[in-house]
Amino acid sequence: MIYLDNSATTKPYKEVLDSFLKVSEDFFGNPSSLHKIGGQAEKLLQQARSQVGKLLNVKETEILFTSGGTESNNLAVKGIAMAHRERGRHIITTSIEHASIHNAMVQLESLGFEITYVKPDGNGFISADSIGREMRDVTILVSVIHVNNEVGTIQPIEEIGSLLKKYPKAFFHVDFVQGVGKVPLDFYEAGIHLSTISGHKFHGVKGTGALFIKEGVRLSPLFSGGNQEWKQRSGTENVAGMVAMAKALRMTFEQRKEKLNQMEAAMERLRSGISQIKEITVHTPMENRAPHILNFSIKGLKAETFVHALEEKDIYVSTTSACSSKKKAASKTLLAMGVPRDEAESAIRVSLTYSNTIEEAELAAKAIAETVKHLSEVVKK
Amino acid sequence: MIYLDNSATTKPYKEVLDSFLKVSEDFFGNPSSLHKIGGQAEKLLQQARSQVGKLLNVKETEILFTSGGTESNNLAVKGIAMAHRERGRHIITTSIEHASIHNAMVQLESLGFEITYVKPDGNGFISADSIGREMRDVTILVSVIHVNNEVGTIQPIEEIGSLLKKYPKAFFHVDFVQGVGKVPLDFYEAGIHLSTISGHKFHGVKGTGALFIKEGVRLSPLFSGGNQEWKQRSGTENVAGMVAMAKALRMTFEQRKEKLNQMEAAMERLRSGISQIKEITVHTPMENRAPHILNFSIKGLKAETFVHALEEKDIYVSTTSACSSKKKAASKTLLAMGVPRDEAESAIRVSLTYSNTIEEAELAAKAIAETVKHLSEVVKK
Ligand SMILES: Cc1ncc(COP(=O)(O)O)c(C=O)c1O
Ligand SMILES: Cc1ncc(COP(=O)(O)O)c(C=O)c1O
Repeated sequence: MIYLDNSATTKPYKEVLDSFLKVSEDFFGNPSSLHKIGGQAEKLLQQARSQVGKLLNVKETEILFTSGGTESNNLAVKGIAMAHRERGRHIITTSIEHASIHNAMVQLESLGFEITYVKPDGNGFISADSIGREMRDVTILVSVIHVNNEVGTIQPIEEIGSLLKKYPKAFFHVDFVQGVGKVPLDFYEAGIHLSTISGHKFHGVKGTGALFIKEGVRLSPLFSGGNQEWKQRSGTENVAGMVAMAKALRMTFEQRKEKLNQMEAAMERLRSGISQIKEITVHTPMENRAPHILNFSIKGLKAETFVHALEEKDIYVSTTSACSSKKKAASKTLLAMGVPRDEAESAIRVSLTYSNTIEEAELAAKAIAETVKHLSEVVKK
Repeated sequence: MIYLDNSATTKPYKEVLDSFLKVSEDFFGNPSSLHKIGGQAEKLLQQARSQVGKLLNVKETEILFTSGGTESNNLAVKGIAMAHRERGRHIITTSIEHASIHNAMVQLESLGFEITYVKPDGNGFISADSIGREMRDVTILVSVIHVNNEVGTIQPIEEIGSLLKKYPKAFFHVDFVQGVGKVPLDFYEAGIHLSTISGHKFHGVKGTGALFIKEGVRLSPLFSGGNQEWKQRSGTENVAGMVAMAKALRMTFEQRKEKLNQMEAAMERLRSGISQIKEITVHTPMENRAPHILNFSIKGLKAETFVHALEEKDIYVSTTSACSSKKKAASKTLLAMGVPRDEAESAIRVSLTYSNTIEEAELAAKAIAETVKHLSEVVKK
């Protein structure tokens, strides 16, 4: 099997599952319980938090554990909107966000907020200026994706952050789900108030995530209750899941050091291989792009047909973001970049992780070429 | 170790962890992915849903998977409130709900909803009449806990449900977290629209839960995004967690058949043992109570001191609900029942599961008696 859909989800590291199992079996207590069984669980949770904080270069008290990227994104956006709605009701985001930001914004619109969706240029970039132009006195939140999950472009987060320093009343949220462990980002330096990560995107288990919330930032919680997680996210904590996520994050950072070159070389091999196929147009730009995502269209072929044809060769790629793939809708990001609809509908995303080898990339490039050839002939008949 | 804090959390069954591991390793795909790796995960998720639906005697399409009891409760209460706020802004609940209902209600108050908190009688019961008296034309939701998590009383859910049939505009939500697998409840027969369960309370893993949503009931989601879970709860699904929860539920139902008698006998032994201790007042009534929870106060002793003293004997009990235990606040339920504050502050909760034996109950009763004697002497000195 050659699994090249790592932006949809990743396989948990063996060591991560070992940790999950160990904690679930031997430290199953409720961290809120007063007795020792609870205390042990609490200590593990706190260690996980401290580890995540260290890896992300922030205070452990700024790490809030959640059930995943979607929860973190919704908590950030709705939590800020509801807590600060008396100060203003204008929010800025982009037209190339993940659905969990986009649809949270749409929901806020129905509650009386005004949302500005900033468009990217033809390469999928959002300039800091294009955000700056939309800033108003009543803007309470700016939310921008770091690495776009469909084409892999990296947005100028630091630049946007420094521009926002002129607007001390607006909070800055960054969806870091695709970037973490792949493209470094310093939350403090970039002036970020809130940032989202999701465990299953870096070989943790599903149902785990975190939200960085800068000290002093106040949110309205989505989950009220027992006041866990500094009263901002109630609910019995998923201790084993968070220990597993912390371990996955540490291992991913280590993998980056050891294997970033290999992944880049694999991506290069893949890109140069498929660029020679005349039916293929590559959408991922050469600059300001993450090392693990490649998006391209195949002229005249349906993306879904292509995914299934590659699957026959035990190679797994994606049409668009996983959660949109069943709707068979064209990629929102590509459309926003000005890619024609029929081309956007034939878009394929390949996404790597550190264990993918150059050999796999070569095999995949070859298989893609053969499949394009074969399917194009079938279509012509 | 004698673990008697099963209402706080339970130890996952070995087979449940095996399932979690197997799914995480061999079926790690994103259920939304188009390819086979995604399809396999989707199939497992659907099987888990169908299993949970069957066990709860409802349609699988009425089961929505969440990250736990707190999420399900918040989604039910806020989701109904926000979706139906144009129809009315009055909600009825009780003063003996879990914090995840109570604090969600408090948050709704700040958004302009009016909440009526119905009080229990001295035994901790809420009569259907006391709910009926508060019903108005603008009441959109009634939320009542099934088995109270602090004292173990069972509320007359069926009676309340049949009373509510006269008010077709009001939705009925039931917090079934402590009842499921212990005290049967038929959602359809009781006229319930929404009901909450939490995986870690019946030997599943933490971070898993479900909300029953009766066909046709419309909610405003807490998580917008990729539109998983019938658009009512976006986010990549925790497939392994849900398969584990379904298995835990099945096993708990089986355990009930085999071991309910044993658990009842253990509880009887415990209750009769500690009833003889003159410093102890039992708060859990004899009627309309769940088989696994016993709440009592020890005159003149601080609950926390007592918990730690028992811990020395490797016996684990709780002061109040786990999430309130660190606040050292008196039990809200006991205060609502009219128990004096000093007595409520010295309350202990013992909570069993099916693996607890009569022998453990005897040992615990004996240890409790000794500890009361010992500590009372220390206090007197
Ligand atoms: C950029 C981005 N943000 C958010 C999410 C949502 O994360 P999760 O799948 O953990 O809900 C995803 C992945 O689905 C993503 O790619
Ligand atoms: C009655 C009741 N409802 C809700 C909850 C919350 O569930 P969870 O711990 O899964 O968030 C609990 C337990 O904490 C409970 O006892």
